[in-house]
Amino acid sequence: MRQSQLFTKTKKEVSKDETSINAQLLIRAGYIDKLAAGIYTFLPLGLRVLVKIENIIREEMNRVGCQEILMPALHPKENWLVASRWDTMHDILFKLEGARGSEFTLGPTHEEVVTPLVKQFVFSYKDLPFAVYQIQSKFRNEARAKSGLLRGREFRMKDVYSFHADQEDLKIFYERMAKVYERVFERLSLGDITYKTFASGGSFSKYSHEYQTVCESGEDEIHLCQKCRLGVNKEIIVDQNSCPKCGNANLEKKKAIEVGNIFELNTKFSEAFNLKYSDEEGKNKLIYMGCYGIGPSRVMGTLVEVFHDEAGIIWPESVAPFRAHLIGVNKNSKIADEFYNKLTDSGVDILYDDRNSVSVGEKFFDADLIGIPHRLVISEKTGDKIEYKKRGELNVKLMSEKEVMDLLYVS
Amino acid sequence: MRQSQLFTKTKKEVSKDETSINAQLLIRAGYIDKLAAGIYTFLPLGLRVLVKIENIIREEMNRVGCQEILMPALHPKENWLVASRWDTMHDILFKLEGARGSEFTLGPTHEEVVTPLVKQFVFSYKDLPFAVYQIQSKFRNEARAKSGLLRGREFRMKDVYSFHADQEDLKIFYERMAKVYERVFERLSLGDITYKTFASGGSFSKYSHEYQTVCESGEDEIHLCQKCRLGVNKEIIVDQNSCPKCGNANLEKKKAIEVGNIFELNTKFSEAFNLKYSDEEGKNKLIYMGCYGIGPSRVMGTLVEVFHDEAGIIWPESVAPFRAHLIGVNKNSKIADEFYNKLTDSGVDILYDDRNSVSVGEKFFDADLIGIPHRLVISEKTGDKIEYKKRGELNVKLMSEKEVMDLLYVS
Repeated sequence: MRQSQLFTKTKKEVSKDETSINAQLLIRAGYIDKLAAGIYTFLPLGLRVLVKIENIIREEMNRVGCQEILMPALHPKENWLVASRWDTMHDILFKLEGARGSEFTLGPTHEEVVTPLVKQFVFSYKDLPFAVYQIQSKFRNEARAKSGLLRGREFRMKDVYSFHADQEDLKIFYERMAKVYERVFERLSLGDITYKTFASGGSFSKYSHEYQTVCESGEDEIHLCQKCRLGVNKEIIVDQNSCPKCGNANLEKKKAIEVGNIFELNTKFSEAFNLKYSDEEGKNKLIYMGCYGIGPSRVMGTLVEVFHDEAGIIWPESVAPFRAHLIGVNKNSKIADEFYNKLTDSGVDILYDDRNSVSVGEKFFDADLIGIPHRLVISEKTGDKIEYKKRGELNVKLMSEKEVMDLLYVS
Repeated sequence: MRQSQLFTKTKKEVSKDETSINAQLLIRAGYIDKLAAGIYTFLPLGLRVLVKIENIIREEMNRVGCQEILMPALHPKENWLVASRWDTMHDILFKLEGARGSEFTLGPTHEEVVTPLVKQFVFSYKDLPFAVYQIQSKFRNEARAKSGLLRGREFRMKDVYSFHADQEDLKIFYERMAKVYERVFERLSLGDITYKTFASGGSFSKYSHEYQTVCESGEDEIHLCQKCRLGVNKEIIVDQNSCPKCGNANLEKKKAIEVGNIFELNTKFSEAFNLKYSDEEGKNKLIYMGCYGIGPSRVMGTLVEVFHDEAGIIWPESVAPFRAHLIGVNKNSKIADEFYNKLTDSGVDILYDDRNSVSVGEKFFDADLIGIPHRLVISEKTGDKIEYKKRGELNVKLMSEKEVMDLLYVS
């Protein structure tokens, strides 16, 4: 894409009430815009990153046979009365009235919708197990939403719900999803610093699990067992000052951001909605459920919190809005135009700074702020070579066209 | 996809309050599920169709340089007070309160968000023209939502907003979008029966334009000028009983469904939000705006209203959930399994009815209901041939594997 065509511009400053690094950098670089506290627009660059994150997650969910659906945001009050969460989750539910006295909440999670939905299709043990998921916008009436994309009132969420004949089968799928989550965070370049973390709320293992990315600006506190490469949420460490797996008492205190979680619902919602199946002997039994969340918009904020320097964002390759940032130094540069067309024609997604109204210094400044991994500079000075710099590194080198092409294909 | 893995099932019956054909067929075939009046879940088959429709629209918007963004559903009351629509659109706005007394509406349209958004980035005539768009869920507090996907309280919408230095430039883009819309409806297989229709509300031509698909079950009434291949909305025919273009007074009365519209906003919102630019002489001038909508979920409902018979849906190729429906007649058929794998490996998207628990008659019944264009039957009876039938046609013929492969690649 030609940068002269992009309707957004980078900003020198950002409103003082944006205190989080992710919001500051994402707004300054033109990825997102704040409509209200915790409510953001994804601008062209930002939507590209979000879609890449969501597609990585989608691919991994499809790979293990989860079936994608799209449930509504508007949930009737009646559904939320069944398991009493209309009242127990009152403080974070947005509630509203529709025509003719109907009452709704905006979905912060979808157990109340998915359980009666699958009830229409599941009758026998032969219909089990299976899992459905969706990727869409969710809503949470947060009193304080001051962490940019880390805590939204409207945010993106991938939520899987799985359905099983018994706890044993739920357990098998739960462990499989734990493996899938490792792969997702690996592909999102957060693998090394994201820990499967014991948290309260489980039943077969006493624990549920969060996926916590270690980061100074995190709101959560976890304790790390480096021996098991596992985390323990602060809330449960109070009872038990050691790793629940190996007993190791030498845990490290760390700030972290919860980027995902997996949770055994067991029969909580199937009891409430009377979701049963008929087993091989014709007996009616309750279905076991699990749920598995990852917040793509929160992941986007987390990536910025983790991967940045003073000059701006440093996107990992897998989610960068473009593969490379081509900068034309001279006005109306024919060589730069031609190289841009060549790269684009060969399928490499390029942001091309072809702006004539902006100084070279500003172009470099913007490129660092925007944070695309590979920067390519073409000027009269470099002759038939291209000046190459990797974002986040200082080293600049001259490369031939062919070397650049090889690099962009291979890496 | 193996049909035995699909968690949905077809239904023999549908609730009596579903009076529209699109809802009846889409629910019975397992494309959508009704959560409340005008609020539907898209099930795996339905989401596939919706995504295909949205991607056709997306490709055409990108082709003319519209930049995709994603704006929030939660809109602060303050934004909706500016152009007074908090009050004037009161009857269709869902309104709600957030924490600490903040008030919101759920966006039924996004002028109130996009205008202040672009104001941050547009300063000079050099920044114009451009257009942004999004594809997402919108909300309308309908008192009566009884037409399935044709009139939702939560529905999908593609909305483009364009920004121009003067009315002349808006006019040029408006006409270009009219051409783009023709191409979109052509690709959606609605080209022959969708008419650009004069409606009230324009300024340079006195009219805005709707895209109306002629259909018996439509809620709108348009008058057709077959000479110009244009429609005239009933609301303006009252003033003028002839075609506004050629004067032809022999118009045909038709029922139709509005699947899209294009509208000159001119300076309505730029005045309200003080959206100005500096022209070549440094003078501040108001920006001209246009907006251009298509409802993908309504298009999906319209396609079913138009393309069905007594047995079920007849999807056009471009939006069918799968390219072909392969039916294995014999239990655990190795030949059918192998052919399914072969087709899948060569990139053809197949729904494979491998269910052992269901009779052949039921499989044929479901295939007609689901409405995938090409039906392929493999049985012991057909030897090394495949029985081919096109949905909506009676003719059944035996084809070789190669003939089937050629058909699925070419058509």
